Amino acid sequence: MDANVTREVYLDYQSSKPVDPRVLDAMHPYFSIKFGNPSSLHLVGDEATKVLEDSREKVAAFIGANQKEIIFTSGATESNNLALIGYAMRNKRKGNHIIISEVEHISIFNITKYLERNGFEVTRVPVDQYARVSPKKLESRITDRTILVSIGYASNEVGTIQPMEEICDVIKRKGIAIHTDAVAAEGLLPLDVNEVPIDLMSISSNDIYGPKGLGVLYIRDGVSVVPTIIGGGQERGLRSGTENIPAVVGMAEATQICSAEMPEEAKRLSSFRDRLIKGVLNKIPKAYLNGHPTERLKNNAHFRFEGVEGESLLLSLKDRGISVSTGSACTSKTLEPSHTLIACGLLHEEAHGSLEFTFGRFNTESDIERVLDVLPGVLERLRGLSPLYEKELIQ
Amino acid sequence: MDANVTREVYLDYQSSKPVDPRVLDAMHPYFSIKFGNPSSLHLVGDEATKVLEDSREKVAAFIGANQKEIIFTSGATESNNLALIGYAMRNKRKGNHIIISEVEHISIFNITKYLERNGFEVTRVPVDQYARVSPKKLESRITDRTILVSIGYASNEVGTIQPMEEICDVIKRKGIAIHTDAVAAEGLLPLDVNEVPIDLMSISSNDIYGPKGLGVLYIRDGVSVVPTIIGGGQERGLRSGTENIPAVVGMAEATQICSAEMPEEAKRLSSFRDRLIKGVLNKIPKAYLNGHPTERLKNNAHFRFEGVEGESLLLSLKDRGISVSTGSACTSKTLEPSHTLIACGLLHEEAHGSLEFTFGRFNTESDIERVLDVLPGVLERLRGLSPLYEKELIQ
Repeated sequence: MDANVTREVYLDYQSSKPVDPRVLDAMHPYFSIKFGNPSSLHLVGDEATKVLEDSREKVAAFIGANQKEIIFTSGATESNNLALIGYAMRNKRKGNHIIISEVEHISIFNITKYLERNGFEVTRVPVDQYARVSPKKLESRITDRTILVSIGYASNEVGTIQPMEEICDVIKRKGIAIHTDAVAAEGLLPLDVNEVPIDLMSISSNDIYGPKGLGVLYIRDGVSVVPTIIGGGQERGLRSGTENIPAVVGMAEATQICSAEMPEEAKRLSSFRDRLIKGVLNKIPKAYLNGHPTERLKNNAHFRFEGVEGESLLLSLKDRGISVSTGSACTSKTLEPSHTLIACGLLHEEAHGSLEFTFGRFNTESDIERVLDVLPGVLERLRGLSPLYEKELIQ
Repeated sequence: MDANVTREVYLDYQSSKPVDPRVLDAMHPYFSIKFGNPSSLHLVGDEATKVLEDSREKVAAFIGANQKEIIFTSGATESNNLALIGYAMRNKRKGNHIIISEVEHISIFNITKYLERNGFEVTRVPVDQYARVSPKKLESRITDRTILVSIGYASNEVGTIQPMEEICDVIKRKGIAIHTDAVAAEGLLPLDVNEVPIDLMSISSNDIYGPKGLGVLYIRDGVSVVPTIIGGGQERGLRSGTENIPAVVGMAEATQICSAEMPEEAKRLSSFRDRLIKGVLNKIPKAYLNGHPTERLKNNAHFRFEGVEGESLLLSLKDRGISVSTGSACTSKTLEPSHTLIACGLLHEEAHGSLEFTFGRFNTESDIERVLDVLPGVLERLRGLSPLYEKELIQ
């Protein structure tokens, strides 16, 4: 690590994760030595085919799936495209109605807008103040034209975990397919397609400390989609393009490490989370927790601070070497308030006064203490500069 | 290298290339240390944004393009999808006719079949016996509904280089857009979009010894496409998904190495090619060169051997530690004869009796000598077993 980065406290694991050095070690031989194309018939190609299928088996085991239900893609965004566009286009004769929630990832929003321009109707079911989808409300949106429901397993912003089993109960009873973008939850919750009868699930490699540029779409046996990337017919014709073997090996290794360490790691992360939440709410006046108080990801603490802009907070913390987020990295360069916070009922200025902390494998207790040391002073200073906050104090 | 691989002579560079160790060194810090998401606003994210744009500039320079004309994708197959589907869907009001050649990569064939199912008409222009497209024949296929022509820069099978400047002359005069899949040519020929006025060009990272899982679509300024992967709006909205920074850095490094070494490397590879072609045609009776005798890639030697199956040859060479190909890796696991060879006028059995050798950066003179030592004996043995070949001798 260069000196610059060592000094930094990184609390934005939801937007990007470092590749675990053990994962990188596993990938290493496949870049320059065992570099074959699985479609080739010679020795180098045979080896690639074997490692591709071994890796697929490991990734399948991570979510309780069969090997043939795993399609490698270039990442979660592509998996979401293949799931929604692929399923909708394949099954449009059954109906043209799709249901998502108001707190989905922007890729789901934009994919469903594309589907709307192509003859589909999309309903967004609202959420409660904690960003939770109500299975009952969801059920009330179902029509006889509904073919697909897509609900993220957990919010990548406020960390709220959805009641997926109950949601599946409602959906599956009606014979409708269910997709979940499980990226925010993976590695933090056990994801088992035998216990939660999801039909289509997007996961990403980087979100379990694997390399970027690789994702998976789990497609339950019997569920049909059309491909969104067309070509040489790799991945059972559902995702063409030469397989990215080093990345596949890396993701497989990442699943192994994750499965072995998840129970311990979950304890460690939730102690950080609880320490930060308690510390912030105790030390800082007019600070509030966004998202669900208990049904939340173990690595997520998301706050709203009255009378400050989240972006000013982020930049002040940046000056002090602390990296955090004001929300989804995928939209953080826009000036729009978080759609998730708005869906939870926050006003625009409340949404803008929010800050997200997400922890991960390489954080230590001292990172949390550092935030608790620095944050109260930063807030005091910013609030001192804010005409808005002063006005509130006077009232 | 493990002992098994060291002993191997790898002559199938068209199907997969090792990552150059210098490229891997350049990528290394970006996996686990500088792992930021360019969309994040903090220090780690800023660094990622900078390296993304620096890399884009290097890749742009490699083909004489502007930075903003470079869209990173997950590979050449995706680039071809974005080029053809993206351009066709964006410009369908101008017309619905697309022209390709009979010797395109299978991804182009399958993408155009998809477009045919979606209201487009596709014409395949034939080639001569050397797999060359005639600009005149191409011109004769143009109608007032033609919006796009896609011709591969060079054949990934028989190595024939297309007369791209003349083709562009014909196409551009009519105001039609031209796409080229330049994957087979990249790193072997200078590709300069100022000299050859291509509108859309697919290149891949691995084909210049960069990592797999990354490609580029060059989109000339002023040419419009719709995205094929929808989401958070990365890559100017044309290719969503978190950017794969380590791979982007790797491809940028690969372009630098390639530019610096191409002149020397071209000489080295063409000496191998000429040695192998001369040796094979001299030593082996009834052996013929497929593809163009002079307008061919410097790393490609492609032969037809009377009276044998290419697959038997491949397997016999595999037993002797020599990796070659019977054609495109992307289709080599099917039993279909190469569509390229059929388009050149070969009979099915002639196409099946063909073998492709492609050289690269890590081959040495001794690899070529090894083939010339081994191949004549292998052919003699196989022909001895072949009732077909005996019959011919008797006649």
